[in-house]
Amino acid sequence: MAIVRETLVYDGPGGPFEGVIAYDDEVEAARPGVLVIPNVLGQKESDNQKAEALAALGYVAFACDVYGQGRRKAPGSADYADYMNELDADRGLLRDRLAASVAVLKDRAAVDPTKTAAIGFCFGGKCALDLARSGQDVLGVVSFHGVYDRPDYDDADPIRAKILVCHGWDDPLGTPDQVTALADELTDAGADWQLHAYGHAGHAFTDLALKDRPAPRPGVGYDAHADRRSWQAMKNFLTELFV
Amino acid sequence: MAIVRETLVYDGPGGPFEGVIAYDDEVEAARPGVLVIPNVLGQKESDNQKAEALAALGYVAFACDVYGQGRRKAPGSADYADYMNELDADRGLLRDRLAASVAVLKDRAAVDPTKTAAIGFCFGGKCALDLARSGQDVLGVVSFHGVYDRPDYDDADPIRAKILVCHGWDDPLGTPDQVTALADELTDAGADWQLHAYGHAGHAFTDLALKDRPAPRPGVGYDAHADRRSWQAMKNFLTELFV
Repeated sequence: MAIVRETLVYDGPGGPFEGVIAYDDEVEAARPGVLVIPNVLGQKESDNQKAEALAALGYVAFACDVYGQGRRKAPGSADYADYMNELDADRGLLRDRLAASVAVLKDRAAVDPTKTAAIGFCFGGKCALDLARSGQDVLGVVSFHGVYDRPDYDDADPIRAKILVCHGWDDPLGTPDQVTALADELTDAGADWQLHAYGHAGHAFTDLALKDRPAPRPGVGYDAHADRRSWQAMKNFLTELFV
Repeated sequence: MAIVRETLVYDGPGGPFEGVIAYDDEVEAARPGVLVIPNVLGQKESDNQKAEALAALGYVAFACDVYGQGRRKAPGSADYADYMNELDADRGLLRDRLAASVAVLKDRAAVDPTKTAAIGFCFGGKCALDLARSGQDVLGVVSFHGVYDRPDYDDADPIRAKILVCHGWDDPLGTPDQVTALADELTDAGADWQLHAYGHAGHAFTDLALKDRPAPRPGVGYDAHADRRSWQAMKNFLTELFV
């Protein structure tokens, strides 16, 4: 097995965008493709590592970009949320950028375009949910410590992508009421959904960059149990999707 | 592999009790033990089948009895909940009967007494939670479509058994408020807990006896997705416990 990375510069509304695709280049058959959607900071090394981990599971994984080439934020910077806030204010544009990223993934010769999914972290979790909500043709999406507010467009009727929501119960960005509202939304939209909630875990529980640092705020931090369990849940979920 | 069943008649407060233990009798080494706690109807063939499925995974599994030998109810009978209600009114007695069942499991030569867990269905899910709450020395418990009201004794401080709650989101016996109250309880008690909630699934989602029958009431019925996913989640959980 030899996992390789390739940097892809691609088009889309407000582009160009720049992402990294990872796959085993010793495999010849087309295989399932998984989009990896970055957190608030934008496309970065930790997303590429997630893509490599997915490639090691036998998938082609594309750590995509929704902010635009060169638009990245450093952890802890005062303006770290600026690109996110900008895009969060235009969920229709976000939807179209996500669609462009899915199209790049499906277009790869190594990818079976009938077998794709998306995973995302923090803001990327919201993006994964938006892919499902907007009716993108992916089999399933996984939100890791995502954010649950609805976009300003209507949900697909029905939402066809299966949904796994991995949630830290102590996440201040996803209170029990917000979780319940998401559950109601997904139920109303006819989605096949699951919620895995982890006690004592907060926002960003998969984020290794926070592992050895004090929490930037209460309810935010790395959690080894939730990280391991949610990755296992994702593996089970992808296995079920791609049968 | 040859899975065998043995009927065990055993003592305890209000006994005798009668359960069925299942294991692979071609294995010689002591292995982890799993208690299987029946639903409202009491110990029955479907519990023995769960025990056999666990035995096939490499465990010794004991489908126990908390009502007493011969005290069983038929599905759909008018008085189907009588034994449960009786015991539900005396959670201290229930705790002691559960402890007696755990002791029988741990006492088997084929069981490694340092590696035990419990799973339960419906009322048995409540019983599994009560094992954790009452500080029984088991590594973990799984509640399948359980009921979440607290007993009238204090929780162990801390609750040491790990907890997996598999929950049908549409379960009328476990509303979002009741789920949130359980999450708060387990968090306050310092338990390592997870909740897996399944959209569109209701109470009794693992109960094959309801598979081809109309729902006895709204929000109650078999659900193949939730049944399969929760069993997978249990397998992952037990693997983690018994490392």
